Amino acid sequence: MAGNSRDAGRSVTARALSVLTAFDIDHSRLTLTAIARRAGIPLATAHRLVRELEHWGALHRDPEGRYSIGLRLWEIGLLSPVNSTLRQVALPFMQELCAATRDNVHLAVRDGTEAVYVEKLTAHTSVPIVSRSGGRLPLHATSVGKVLLAHAPASLLQECCEHGLSRHTPYTITEPGRLGRELHGVRARGFAQATEEMSLGNCSVAVPVRDATGSVVAALGLVAHSVRAEVVKLVKPLLPAAESIRQRLLEKDPAADGVLSL
Amino acid sequence: MAGNSRDAGRSVTARALSVLTAFDIDHSRLTLTAIARRAGIPLATAHRLVRELEHWGALHRDPEGRYSIGLRLWEIGLLSPVNSTLRQVALPFMQELCAATRDNVHLAVRDGTEAVYVEKLTAHTSVPIVSRSGGRLPLHATSVGKVLLAHAPASLLQECCEHGLSRHTPYTITEPGRLGRELHGVRARGFAQATEEMSLGNCSVAVPVRDATGSVVAALGLVAHSVRAEVVKLVKPLLPAAESIRQRLLEKDPAADGVLSL
Repeated sequence: MAGNSRDAGRSVTARALSVLTAFDIDHSRLTLTAIARRAGIPLATAHRLVRELEHWGALHRDPEGRYSIGLRLWEIGLLSPVNSTLRQVALPFMQELCAATRDNVHLAVRDGTEAVYVEKLTAHTSVPIVSRSGGRLPLHATSVGKVLLAHAPASLLQECCEHGLSRHTPYTITEPGRLGRELHGVRARGFAQATEEMSLGNCSVAVPVRDATGSVVAALGLVAHSVRAEVVKLVKPLLPAAESIRQRLLEKDPAADGVLSL
Repeated sequence: MAGNSRDAGRSVTARALSVLTAFDIDHSRLTLTAIARRAGIPLATAHRLVRELEHWGALHRDPEGRYSIGLRLWEIGLLSPVNSTLRQVALPFMQELCAATRDNVHLAVRDGTEAVYVEKLTAHTSVPIVSRSGGRLPLHATSVGKVLLAHAPASLLQECCEHGLSRHTPYTITEPGRLGRELHGVRARGFAQATEEMSLGNCSVAVPVRDATGSVVAALGLVAHSVRAEVVKLVKPLLPAAESIRQRLLEKDPAADGVLSL
């Protein structure tokens, strides 16, 4: 099969991990054949690895014989500091924000040139949005992304621009010079804003979440209907929430400097 | 080292997975030496496996050289149906319950003889509790556990009793006959209750969450101060929330029967 050539020279661990990589949000339930094809490994190898991974609990086999990510891998993943420290501390404050504003509330961290959504809370009346916890969006087109990019090393802006600033709506900032000026404003004002830059009809604002050392470790944001949104009103509850999260992070684990470093 | 004998005969995949198993809630940041010891593998093997796992993103190395579970493993874990289907659907209803009651809100599934907490929402005014998302508690001592046990195959009660019904407070039900009658009551009444059976001072109630086929796939519960709690008042908002979750599960994925099967 086509995958065999890709498989040559890879270690057993790399092949086992490639089985996990076969899964994504659009491919969350896969047959054994699909796993082998997507992982680029021979069917016999896939069969053996899947059996071991299922036995351990990294994969779950449903009654129809399709595989999904197993409970045990989910449990181990929750031990990541992004969940066990950052999300756990932020969640009650996010709930309060969501209850008070009825808007979508986001918590995101940076991984390379992308924003990773750690949690997304949504009220039934909130505007529909594309993010989900565990999902990724580009840094330049969302307010949480702009906060993370504004506080990243300067070389990252250049890296993002070299990758190309993808256009999502007519309002997305795709011109490097303009994005640089925008990020300067984010640092000066203490918050970021994105108006219909990721999705038409939506407006978002975000503020930095800092750890005990003052480093920006995450961004906290709200997404609202752009026609209803008043930026100043949106930012107002975010700032004390971000400050409370910083204080709780320090109380929870005073020695945790660097654990959430991006 | 002591671990070497345990390592003999294990496959490479099993050894890579044993590195992940070295981490738990009380050991979420480990040195390489600690990983090798806890995984029961030679240091040189641990070094090679940790390097591969770090390269892929299953582990993260902090500035002090300690390892924690990495962002990518957390992201892959979120693809588990327990998160991507059940938790995503239930979360807005859990937020509403938490905002309305100011109590702790739990969503749990069963794994063998344990309740696994899929999500726990807590208000700042809620009574402190021992559960956490991704944590486990015994089935017989909590209300979500009793719901899950009451709707499990009959043989499971026997299995739990054979394991021994652990006593957590003077009020924990540890006598098999009494637990059997309690579970009969849970099925008859449609909800479970636990009064200071897990922690002194706390009272909890829970109701079943069913999928499209009517199978119980999860339990939804509230934990309150036992002195303040009125059981009927606690149960009242849970029943419509559980029914709404059932409806949304069906809308989200009508073909998902069995995906959440326990």
